[in-house]
Amino acid sequence: MTLTIDKVKELKEKPNPKQLGFGKYFTDHMFMMDYEREKGWFNPRIKPYEPLSLDPATMVFHYSQSVFEGLKAYRTEDDRVLLFRPEKNFERLNESNRRLSIPLVDNELILQYLKKLIEIEKEWIPKEEGTSLYIRPFIIPTDTNLRVAPANTYKLMIILSPVGSYYPEGIHPVSIYVEHEYTRAVKGGTGTAKTAGNYSAGYVAQEKAAQNGFAQVLWLDGMEKKYIEEVGSMNVFFRIDDEVVTPKLNGSILPGITRMSIIELLKSWGVPVKERLVSMEEIIEAYKNNRLKEAFGTGTAAVISPIGELNWHNEQYIINNKKTGELSKKLYETITSIQTGSMKDTFNWTEVVK
Amino acid sequence: MTLTIDKVKELKEKPNPKQLGFGKYFTDHMFMMDYEREKGWFNPRIKPYEPLSLDPATMVFHYSQSVFEGLKAYRTEDDRVLLFRPEKNFERLNESNRRLSIPLVDNELILQYLKKLIEIEKEWIPKEEGTSLYIRPFIIPTDTNLRVAPANTYKLMIILSPVGSYYPEGIHPVSIYVEHEYTRAVKGGTGTAKTAGNYSAGYVAQEKAAQNGFAQVLWLDGMEKKYIEEVGSMNVFFRIDDEVVTPKLNGSILPGITRMSIIELLKSWGVPVKERLVSMEEIIEAYKNNRLKEAFGTGTAAVISPIGELNWHNEQYIINNKKTGELSKKLYETITSIQTGSMKDTFNWTEVVK
Repeated sequence: MTLTIDKVKELKEKPNPKQLGFGKYFTDHMFMMDYEREKGWFNPRIKPYEPLSLDPATMVFHYSQSVFEGLKAYRTEDDRVLLFRPEKNFERLNESNRRLSIPLVDNELILQYLKKLIEIEKEWIPKEEGTSLYIRPFIIPTDTNLRVAPANTYKLMIILSPVGSYYPEGIHPVSIYVEHEYTRAVKGGTGTAKTAGNYSAGYVAQEKAAQNGFAQVLWLDGMEKKYIEEVGSMNVFFRIDDEVVTPKLNGSILPGITRMSIIELLKSWGVPVKERLVSMEEIIEAYKNNRLKEAFGTGTAAVISPIGELNWHNEQYIINNKKTGELSKKLYETITSIQTGSMKDTFNWTEVVK
Repeated sequence: MTLTIDKVKELKEKPNPKQLGFGKYFTDHMFMMDYEREKGWFNPRIKPYEPLSLDPATMVFHYSQSVFEGLKAYRTEDDRVLLFRPEKNFERLNESNRRLSIPLVDNELILQYLKKLIEIEKEWIPKEEGTSLYIRPFIIPTDTNLRVAPANTYKLMIILSPVGSYYPEGIHPVSIYVEHEYTRAVKGGTGTAKTAGNYSAGYVAQEKAAQNGFAQVLWLDGMEKKYIEEVGSMNVFFRIDDEVVTPKLNGSILPGITRMSIIELLKSWGVPVKERLVSMEEIIEAYKNNRLKEAFGTGTAAVISPIGELNWHNEQYIINNKKTGELSKKLYETITSIQTGSMKDTFNWTEVVK
């Protein structure tokens, strides 16, 4: 398949790099590719970023069946462009496709197209500390009828957004509400897939938490509301004494790429790390015995988001005096330094864009 | 709020009423209304049916947060137009909105707008037996940024589609695969809401069933895979001896309007009907004792869809010799006769459009 490139006539004005926020601005071009049942994926193209024209009966509006990914491109001190384990995102995209009955993509080829797009948009990658170019690949079904069945036509798109530092005022621990009414996901459901419906399903709990002054919710398992699963839309880790534990991938947890990297990093440092069932009771028990040293969420947006407080059944549990723990800090600094090329990447996690 | 009406210049050619299928053709006009956080819902309008122009960053593509409804308008022998319990659909739309953190709508007002739209599109309501005008109200979030949070802007739309008879060759029982790997919904999740993500989540099970020659899947509860919940995207009923049982609305089952009507109808006939937990084991036990007389799904599309066979853990259970049961038939005929005005509506379920 030949990639066609159609460049815009006039470039947009770039936004103020100090006021980027998250996912508000988009670059001049986007990547697009189509699928039809008889043809497979075809017509890969880089074209001007512009609105889609979609019939009101387009399946994406009615039955979702859409999946996405999120990764970042970083500009190094010496002006190279790095991607962080991008092959893992495109492998996961196919896992999400499989769960949602969406035809698989040639993930290695898509990564090549992405690199070409980034090359064209290189000037959009902000230079300020903590900033990056957020990359959003996504797939939507485009059949225009109301059958409740997998679509026969799809579009895969990649859009790019320069984003600000997640911590403009420095990394700081947040208060978390332990949710025991709503459920994020359950085994046999779509929790392991990065699919659209998983995200809006959590809004009602998120709003309830926000109204009570909490930054996010901690999700428990959907069966017994006993075991910890995720925090907000991040994976979650706890340091108990000098061991780190994180919920194992039990069929309802998103297999995070930051999560995977944290585990590999801890192992390389000789820090014991276990992927296993982690019950809320166990965490509270550790807390009461002064053995709960740190807790943090992990994800592409924040990398590490320290948890300063857990609220469970109206009891307040303050972790590490609401300060960022030493291990959390070291993990954050190591990963962001590898991502931005300021630390040697002994893991071979980063990939240079041309 | 004043409804504005902008009519098309040229009407479309109407499709062959014998080859309508489901949700393939759409009428000349649609209803649309917008929401902004500061303004509330505004600008209700009937306008030409035409594509939407949406930025690729529009939230609906990324995090779903969309809900919908499905109901029908029927043309009577004497050329009146009837809606079947439409107020229930718009009440449920608000229940779905509540679960998905979408601002509530004035459901009575929307129903008035819908009636106006149908009045304009009256010629699109097919006359053939079993046909009707399918009505699809839906809401999508329209913010153009990638925040994982409830949108600040939405569009509510109603589109209309003339649809063919669900049973062009007569009502016939189908074979059903009892799904014990995938989960449709779980308490605390979104199973009670008519939200986009619920539908595509079931495709993978639906495809697996189809590959093995089954028309649909029977969904069990997500916790223990023990209790029956729904069949395909329908509610489900079983007749055991002369009693009818259906799973109770336990927090993961869609509260169907056909379901509700079936229960009321059975009660009016003096047929004992129970809403309670129904385990798969109980159904098999009743089957083995020759007490399982009939089984059927209920929903807007098919009204009644008889189940002729259940396949559970590779065992085949043939119900009523794969023939439509007498109660299933009577329910189907009564409801469709009320819907199309050929039987007196003693329940006051139907509403005349002007």
